[in-house]
Amino acid sequence: MAKPPVIVLVEPQLGQNIGKAARAMLNFGLTEMRIVNPRDGWPNPEAGPAASKADIVLEKAEVFDTTAEAVADCSQVYASTVRRRDVHVPVVGPEEMADEIRRSEGRSAILFGRERSGLSTEDVALSTRIVTVPINPEFGSLNLAQAVILLAYEWSRGADLAQPTVREEEPPAPMGELEGLIGQFEESLDRKGYFFPPERAQATRRTIRTLMTKPGWSSREINALRGMLRTIESAPRED
Amino acid sequence: MAKPPVIVLVEPQLGQNIGKAARAMLNFGLTEMRIVNPRDGWPNPEAGPAASKADIVLEKAEVFDTTAEAVADCSQVYASTVRRRDVHVPVVGPEEMADEIRRSEGRSAILFGRERSGLSTEDVALSTRIVTVPINPEFGSLNLAQAVILLAYEWSRGADLAQPTVREEEPPAPMGELEGLIGQFEESLDRKGYFFPPERAQATRRTIRTLMTKPGWSSREINALRGMLRTIESAPRED
Repeated sequence: MAKPPVIVLVEPQLGQNIGKAARAMLNFGLTEMRIVNPRDGWPNPEAGPAASKADIVLEKAEVFDTTAEAVADCSQVYASTVRRRDVHVPVVGPEEMADEIRRSEGRSAILFGRERSGLSTEDVALSTRIVTVPINPEFGSLNLAQAVILLAYEWSRGADLAQPTVREEEPPAPMGELEGLIGQFEESLDRKGYFFPPERAQATRRTIRTLMTKPGWSSREINALRGMLRTIESAPRED
Repeated sequence: MAKPPVIVLVEPQLGQNIGKAARAMLNFGLTEMRIVNPRDGWPNPEAGPAASKADIVLEKAEVFDTTAEAVADCSQVYASTVRRRDVHVPVVGPEEMADEIRRSEGRSAILFGRERSGLSTEDVALSTRIVTVPINPEFGSLNLAQAVILLAYEWSRGADLAQPTVREEEPPAPMGELEGLIGQFEESLDRKGYFFPPERAQATRRTIRTLMTKPGWSSREINALRGMLRTIESAPRED
């Protein structure tokens, strides 16, 4: 398994955004942040509160003078930006990026540009790929932390970071218990003359069976339903 | 191709967060927002500036008094939350959710709870699924707009690729029809004094809701069941 990618913020302007990016990273298990030439210096007192307890990321963050230095140990560098006409760099989507990072033996970095103007031509030129999140062509408005969280999420999807999705449902009851419910339901209906005319009875019973089989109720649920049915059929409450 | 999911914000507290959620949605082509009982009323003057030109989403947003009303026309309802022990609702990941929504013939809704406390047990109980974003087990800190953007992104990823699937099954009935069945069932039980002692009534109603939500019965099936229930409750056959 490849190491998680490094997140490189190039000339970020607001400390708050650096904190939010840290928080976005840590949600998906990314902890290595590098900051290139931050406008307001480093450390930045506004970053901590915005990080919302992701301080560990900020404490470990490293600062560099240039993007080239920040990615010197990385063999794959992804420039997070829209398609660019000014540089010839292959464009990939987030999923392809994540696949490549996971397969890579070397380190990978993902570059994010400054809030207003994004990455410079020079920054893109030293990247091995452009990574573009496919967004609404008529409305593209991702801020720094959102761009970070989407790519971090995409990386984590295949990284086995979290437990596999399990269904917490109780297992469906054995068919014998389901038969008990169906039988009880049919008897209740039969006592009220529901299966009339007799020619239709078979089709009606089939409908009931289909209805009751569909949910995959658990034993507990089937017991609860049988109790409810008994109640509805019981003598009227006297009060 | 299924319709895009409706985003339902349940009792959101800050107008700013409603605006940010709108912006997150529009990035991935979602435009239908519903707001349940917003704390500060609606419209909220703080929403617009935070939406960053996603005003179209806010202008079209609809306000409802209850979550049940907000999802009455939806046949699939996803509660965006962590795993819950208080309700038995199947848990899926974002990808599985997106697949299901794209294949579904009915409308789908994704519920997001209030900023501090998330979704109530009642909101989760009326959902057909819990959707959980797998995050760092040691640091989970997604804000409202981030949760929205991740699920919107996941939906959009395959939105172009998905083929309409032909299902032989009838589509699940809209939630409004299911509410009718649940209401009738509860009344039948209530008439026989089932909800006793009163302290247990709420939990019992929740169990019933979970049981009835699980199957995804079609409109035809729900009508059949309501007829059967009426029959069971009717006066004894005289013969």
